[in-house]
Amino acid sequence: MTAAEPPRVVTACIVIIGNEILSGRTQDANLQYLAKALGGLGIRLREVRVIPDEEPVIVETVNACRVRFDYVFTTGGIGPTHDDITAASVAKAFGVPFGRNKEAEAILRRHYRPEDVTEGRLRMADMPDGVTFIANPVSSAPGFQLGNVFVLPGVPKIMQAMFEGMKHRLVGGVPMLSKTITSFILEGVIAAALSRVQEKHRDVEIGSYPFFRHGKTGACLVLRSVDAARLDPAAEDVRAMIRSFGGEPHEEL
Amino acid sequence: MTAAEPPRVVTACIVIIGNEILSGRTQDANLQYLAKALGGLGIRLREVRVIPDEEPVIVETVNACRVRFDYVFTTGGIGPTHDDITAASVAKAFGVPFGRNKEAEAILRRHYRPEDVTEGRLRMADMPDGVTFIANPVSSAPGFQLGNVFVLPGVPKIMQAMFEGMKHRLVGGVPMLSKTITSFILEGVIAAALSRVQEKHRDVEIGSYPFFRHGKTGACLVLRSVDAARLDPAAEDVRAMIRSFGGEPHEEL
Repeated sequence: MTAAEPPRVVTACIVIIGNEILSGRTQDANLQYLAKALGGLGIRLREVRVIPDEEPVIVETVNACRVRFDYVFTTGGIGPTHDDITAASVAKAFGVPFGRNKEAEAILRRHYRPEDVTEGRLRMADMPDGVTFIANPVSSAPGFQLGNVFVLPGVPKIMQAMFEGMKHRLVGGVPMLSKTITSFILEGVIAAALSRVQEKHRDVEIGSYPFFRHGKTGACLVLRSVDAARLDPAAEDVRAMIRSFGGEPHEEL
Repeated sequence: MTAAEPPRVVTACIVIIGNEILSGRTQDANLQYLAKALGGLGIRLREVRVIPDEEPVIVETVNACRVRFDYVFTTGGIGPTHDDITAASVAKAFGVPFGRNKEAEAILRRHYRPEDVTEGRLRMADMPDGVTFIANPVSSAPGFQLGNVFVLPGVPKIMQAMFEGMKHRLVGGVPMLSKTITSFILEGVIAAALSRVQEKHRDVEIGSYPFFRHGKTGACLVLRSVDAARLDPAAEDVRAMIRSFGGEPHEEL
């Protein structure tokens, strides 16, 4: 590595596999958790796709995303029932054989009493060839990594425990730093001035989000940059801009 | 239309435009609302994409989705600030001119006092040529429809009010009917038997979702079909299957 090497940006995509999310029956809870966790590792979540439990769609989506992003995380579709087809679909996406993984089977047989080792539960040991397991400390059935694709379950509690146990495998890039500055000045009032602050600080990404709080409205300004030395002066200009409209800037964590 | 014409399936895709969702700062609340509302209109939500506020990504995503699905709904990025670039990006996706819409400007000028008509607020009147407005009963700035793409705001309260006011424009297809049957029998126990029920009722899509409730675990089985006459016998077989394992099926609405 030379001193002149630019900071490496590492990207990720989440593929949420689940008819229950697309029908509105279930509110997804994995996107926000993974988004924050990846951000903390210096990995930028660049896209999320929610797709149905259908093999051709899963194959196409996994293949489109795995060449485009450094890491792909799938959630959902790795349980014991007939509608859990993520593992088989990922095998197809990679063009590798799919079948009973003896080590995964051994894990399941250690977890369940012999009379509880059902045909359905053993399905959870069917995996693509060449995987690395993602340990499941909650209900034993492992997820897996194949290339840059990480296959996780949809149940949030289990997904989170598994992610926490495997995140040391992920290599982050330069972390995105951020500052959040709020005030009760409306977006429509500050828009032009804020645009000039953005023009002045091109290496800082400034997002503006309206909010409704305590019966009052305002804007939450989020400044993001990989460079703290660039973030601080931009934040100073944002605070001065808010004060110039008679507002009081509040910094949020 | 002839009697033999198959029921028409109408599809939709949601494109959520927002760095704040991808960073994990904000939990999306629009997906589930739109999923349920579209389902109620006989429109199948087939895919959701969450993408950053970046013109090339928005252009590519809108163009990929609008040829693939009957309807595309975007949320986010149509406010008054510099980071609101959805309207300009949609114009680029369609290859049509983008500029100040006089009618939209008139709506904004009627809503705001003259001294509150800022440069930023007038930006919300910049639209692609050839749009049809989507009225905004909350804060006046209209969204718009261009072809099969419906451009909505990200703030849930406003998005919902606007969607409710425009949904009569959407033409649904054959509605998906569903039945939800739960029991405290675990997925791993019923998996093989459930698979046989699915084999027998190929025109009914059966999804199985584990749950944790009152300290007990079980499975929620969701049966979906466009044909009530096929749904009822499948539900009867699912209930019988649950009872064969000593469980008690509960129907949920």
